[in-house]
Amino acid sequence: MKSSSANMAKKKSSSSIVKPFDNIGRNRVIIENVTPQVEKGLYPAKRVEYEWVIVEADVFTDGHDHVKAVLLHRKKGARKWNETNMQSLGNDRFQGFFHCENTGYYEFSIKGFIDHPNTWIHAFRKRKAEQDHKELAVQVAIAKDYLNQLISDYPKAKKELLQAIKEIDDPTYEYAASIILEDLFNKYPLERFPTFFDKTFEVVAHRKRAGFSAWYSFFPRSAAKPGSNHGTFKDCEELLPRIKEMGFDVVYFPPIHPIGEAFKKGKNNTLNAGASEPGCPYATGLGKGGHKDILPELGTLKEFKDFIKKTAAMGMEVAMDFAIQCSPDHPYVKEYPQWFKWRPDGTVQYAENPPKKYQDVLPLDYENEDWQNMWLELKSILDYWISQGIKIFRVDNPHTKSFIFWQWCLSEIEKEHPDVLFLSEAFTRPRIMENLAKKGFHQSYTYYTWRNSKSELMQYMDELTKGPMREYFRPNFWPNTHDINPYITQSGHEPQFILRYFMAATLSSNYGIFGPSYELMVHAALPGKEEYLDSEKYEVRHWDWEHRNKLMHVISLINKLRNENQAMHFTNNYQVCDIANDQMMAWLKVYGDNKILCVVNLDAYNKQSGNITIPLISIGKNEHESYVVHDLITDDRYIWTGSTNFVELDPYRLPFHFFRIEGV
Amino acid sequence: MKSSSANMAKKKSSSSIVKPFDNIGRNRVIIENVTPQVEKGLYPAKRVEYEWVIVEADVFTDGHDHVKAVLLHRKKGARKWNETNMQSLGNDRFQGFFHCENTGYYEFSIKGFIDHPNTWIHAFRKRKAEQDHKELAVQVAIAKDYLNQLISDYPKAKKELLQAIKEIDDPTYEYAASIILEDLFNKYPLERFPTFFDKTFEVVAHRKRAGFSAWYSFFPRSAAKPGSNHGTFKDCEELLPRIKEMGFDVVYFPPIHPIGEAFKKGKNNTLNAGASEPGCPYATGLGKGGHKDILPELGTLKEFKDFIKKTAAMGMEVAMDFAIQCSPDHPYVKEYPQWFKWRPDGTVQYAENPPKKYQDVLPLDYENEDWQNMWLELKSILDYWISQGIKIFRVDNPHTKSFIFWQWCLSEIEKEHPDVLFLSEAFTRPRIMENLAKKGFHQSYTYYTWRNSKSELMQYMDELTKGPMREYFRPNFWPNTHDINPYITQSGHEPQFILRYFMAATLSSNYGIFGPSYELMVHAALPGKEEYLDSEKYEVRHWDWEHRNKLMHVISLINKLRNENQAMHFTNNYQVCDIANDQMMAWLKVYGDNKILCVVNLDAYNKQSGNITIPLISIGKNEHESYVVHDLITDDRYIWTGSTNFVELDPYRLPFHFFRIEGV
Repeated sequence: MKSSSANMAKKKSSSSIVKPFDNIGRNRVIIENVTPQVEKGLYPAKRVEYEWVIVEADVFTDGHDHVKAVLLHRKKGARKWNETNMQSLGNDRFQGFFHCENTGYYEFSIKGFIDHPNTWIHAFRKRKAEQDHKELAVQVAIAKDYLNQLISDYPKAKKELLQAIKEIDDPTYEYAASIILEDLFNKYPLERFPTFFDKTFEVVAHRKRAGFSAWYSFFPRSAAKPGSNHGTFKDCEELLPRIKEMGFDVVYFPPIHPIGEAFKKGKNNTLNAGASEPGCPYATGLGKGGHKDILPELGTLKEFKDFIKKTAAMGMEVAMDFAIQCSPDHPYVKEYPQWFKWRPDGTVQYAENPPKKYQDVLPLDYENEDWQNMWLELKSILDYWISQGIKIFRVDNPHTKSFIFWQWCLSEIEKEHPDVLFLSEAFTRPRIMENLAKKGFHQSYTYYTWRNSKSELMQYMDELTKGPMREYFRPNFWPNTHDINPYITQSGHEPQFILRYFMAATLSSNYGIFGPSYELMVHAALPGKEEYLDSEKYEVRHWDWEHRNKLMHVISLINKLRNENQAMHFTNNYQVCDIANDQMMAWLKVYGDNKILCVVNLDAYNKQSGNITIPLISIGKNEHESYVVHDLITDDRYIWTGSTNFVELDPYRLPFHFFRIEGV
Repeated sequence: MKSSSANMAKKKSSSSIVKPFDNIGRNRVIIENVTPQVEKGLYPAKRVEYEWVIVEADVFTDGHDHVKAVLLHRKKGARKWNETNMQSLGNDRFQGFFHCENTGYYEFSIKGFIDHPNTWIHAFRKRKAEQDHKELAVQVAIAKDYLNQLISDYPKAKKELLQAIKEIDDPTYEYAASIILEDLFNKYPLERFPTFFDKTFEVVAHRKRAGFSAWYSFFPRSAAKPGSNHGTFKDCEELLPRIKEMGFDVVYFPPIHPIGEAFKKGKNNTLNAGASEPGCPYATGLGKGGHKDILPELGTLKEFKDFIKKTAAMGMEVAMDFAIQCSPDHPYVKEYPQWFKWRPDGTVQYAENPPKKYQDVLPLDYENEDWQNMWLELKSILDYWISQGIKIFRVDNPHTKSFIFWQWCLSEIEKEHPDVLFLSEAFTRPRIMENLAKKGFHQSYTYYTWRNSKSELMQYMDELTKGPMREYFRPNFWPNTHDINPYITQSGHEPQFILRYFMAATLSSNYGIFGPSYELMVHAALPGKEEYLDSEKYEVRHWDWEHRNKLMHVISLINKLRNENQAMHFTNNYQVCDIANDQMMAWLKVYGDNKILCVVNLDAYNKQSGNITIPLISIGKNEHESYVVHDLITDDRYIWTGSTNFVELDPYRLPFHFFRIEGV
């Protein structure tokens, strides 16, 4: 022993070995696996204002001491951290909450330390039963030492703590084992050698609409009454009551800018359109008119601003398309030729989004040397329309523009206009869709349009709401778009339209339809393709805006119920319910006392039935309790008991149930 | 337009907005989700020397351009990075490899860039079919531009590239579409605006034994022949041929240090042992003898060193126990009282690992003010035994010592002795076992001892080999230990012993048994507990070392087969095979051409059979091909065809098959 301790004493003088741990060598608590986080904190997790953020972490120590886990959180920029005790979930997992009181950035981290007094009191209660008075006296002396340490840590609590030191001498040891003393130890934690998690994570709270929206999209040029000509913003104004009646809250227009003449597309995407054809609005730019100008046939800037105001007055918002590519006639082509990739023959290769070819559109080159000016100019388009009253943009094919541009552009816009929202229209591979959402898009189009079977839908909902995507990717479900006339509704079968609409609007808190094709159940397609026949992308259409049908009635009802039931304002609260039929699917959404159960029959042609299993813990019932299942469409009320109950759906009546679970 | 461009020009002068992206604004490639990594790179991933490291990452860009993903890797400390092209796995995932040529640290990262020439050649081949000669001429001009850029990037390849520029003018366009040109583009990649992943990850390669070992544990004090007294190192030497015959390669001893007298434990863990009782070797320390001393009854230091040498001469290694706690008689208690937590009554609370109480053992206090000296002294124990020839330590209850101490201690030892290995004996909650492995333990005891049913075993193997643990937690499977006499073998039923042994030795490349209790099928337990009756922890036992049985024969055979078949040298190559019987389990392990299929009957009392499904892709066969399934125990050969085949196992014959899959 001598030699080794001498050896040690020698080393003592040179503390170099211990140095890396100099200040933290007694910090025994480990903190790991903190959630929510996106890419290890590279991007913020997304929430909406008023939402609670649930923070979890593994917090543990060596040995058998109790640990205290504390959630540190603050509005970003605030000087002081708020501290909230976290609760144990078992297996070293702890959970705490904080509230997004308004929009903006929040930050949080975790602190942990050994809770010696609580370790002591739990051990003391066991020892008390053993009635070894000599040992109990030793234990009380240990507790007094803790209380004395607390007096120096919390001088303001001196009186309270001195009283405890007095009472703990009670020879029955009742006080020493009491919940009163435990509460005192929790009120004044003895914090020694705390471990701070080495990272701070961010959460951004967006305005409510980012998380809850019902979009109605249509071509303003088709807004005119049958028999008249090119639709105008004035015509669009006439349609607002109809859109409001259906209950939508975002009105989205494809591009409203001047359309190029070069390589203009004709009816049904033919090349070399006739002079009288209007062309495709995604081929932006003609003469002096570019992305900051309005197609004269639609009206004036003032008329567009009037439309924005009237929409707002009815409680809705206008979303604009941001489609960066340019027609060969766009003024940028002449003013900033350096932004395009010129070929040896003096042309620019037209844009493609395979298998689609956009012969009338030139892409910008994100590797060009003048990229900084290009970025500034592109952002200035957004700035311009924001200054005209626009707060929502649907971004066309963002995945064909560089990710780093979006990261910069969206963060710059957010600094000045945190209420401006962006929807990413990227129908492409998973990693790309995910990355755009990480880069700052508030909502994203999804694969919902092609998820039809129960297993596909269940798997996709799990991916969106149970995996890492839940923190940053806000799905927006569309049963159709102006680019997609899906095979499943090409039949024109009404129950199918109702079903696909209902699932979009209730699985996801954000959804949209392309009208009036959807609600009028337009279904004629280009042969073998998921494209509309006589698509409004290439021509002006006229519609019977006075027509009313069952689907429109369902849309109005469901949008009303979505607004009235807070559980529908979120997507991540989706919880699947077992149902013993491959053609039926059921899910529960709970928010506080509001509990919504949706059941669908995926077979749009046959009656289907099955036994549904409700996760009782989520509705606060046990196997022997009854509850009311209130059909909010028919006002029928069913009394169910326990977890398993029978449901049946006839698609020709309605392919879904929208139930609210209520007390008896 | 004018106003906006003027606006932009103004902003141009103040580049502050663009600044954050100044140097990377044209870097269009995104790199994410790089594996392997442990806690975001906080700890290295573990491998063994000669092993390949498979690196994967998501690498993608906007638009439709091809990307090139390059794995950068080097031995830590090397100046130059090696570059290896990664291959696409689809869905934007790329994979590359590097080799751990010897032990030590490696680092890797990823680089990605747009591969314009390959984007071009793939598009060109499609265009060639369209026979638009004007367009093809433009395309050739574009390719020539790439080739000219490459000449300036690779001046040494000038001749080769000039030749290509000449040949590409071939008016049939055969060369421009050729694999020859594609190969040239791959040989000389056109690297512009590369993205570098912002982190470097580490891999540590340990010596082979860290990943492949068969441990035999016994109490040296029980090594003497029946009728004689306390066993000695000399007696242990006599047992080496027996251990070698069974095929083990690590011989592990519980502590061999002086044992305390205070609160000495008696037979079967009774308190207040008689003077003649030897006490528990985990109560280390008496008089001047501590952790650097040897219990005189076992022999001298020289005899211990002789034992180490003789073991080494037979191709085996000695593992020592590192059990930090002290008996109240340990010299540390007097010399360093500041390292213990004294109670008001002048005693130290004894150690506990609930529900176990160690009245004869005092824990050290890792929060004491003199912690730095305590750390140095503890490490000096390891240094001392390493200098005596020990290279493997089994660490007793590391989870009751602070994590940060282990992190420091293991990394310090590793710097001087990278060949020294540590096995963590932490039978506790998952996060704690995992963290110790992250902190540097080379191997870890596992829950295998209590995983008996097929679903438990399958789930546990998935957790160990398919989740994040695979990168840092090396399981060591023990069917028993000197602390655990599991319920499942308390029957003494021979097929059960064979089965539990076989699974430990073939599911995991690292495993061990506590002998001779295991191979002699000792099974008497303290009533209702998983403790051995008359445990050697509290008394000297004598065994019939000459006895031979079927289990010992199986052990010898399996250890021989483990050594001969490289697929058995790894654990993460475990791949479960479907088998239509809940009492049967099967798994495949493949390493290069070596393909081992293990099948077990979990029912040790009844014959079981079922159809097994082999994942044919893993053995390089298709549904119509035959292959030989060679039983390496019986030398039987079966010809199987396709994926599904029949197996049957009679536990009284043998409860397992050990097959090698061979060609026909």
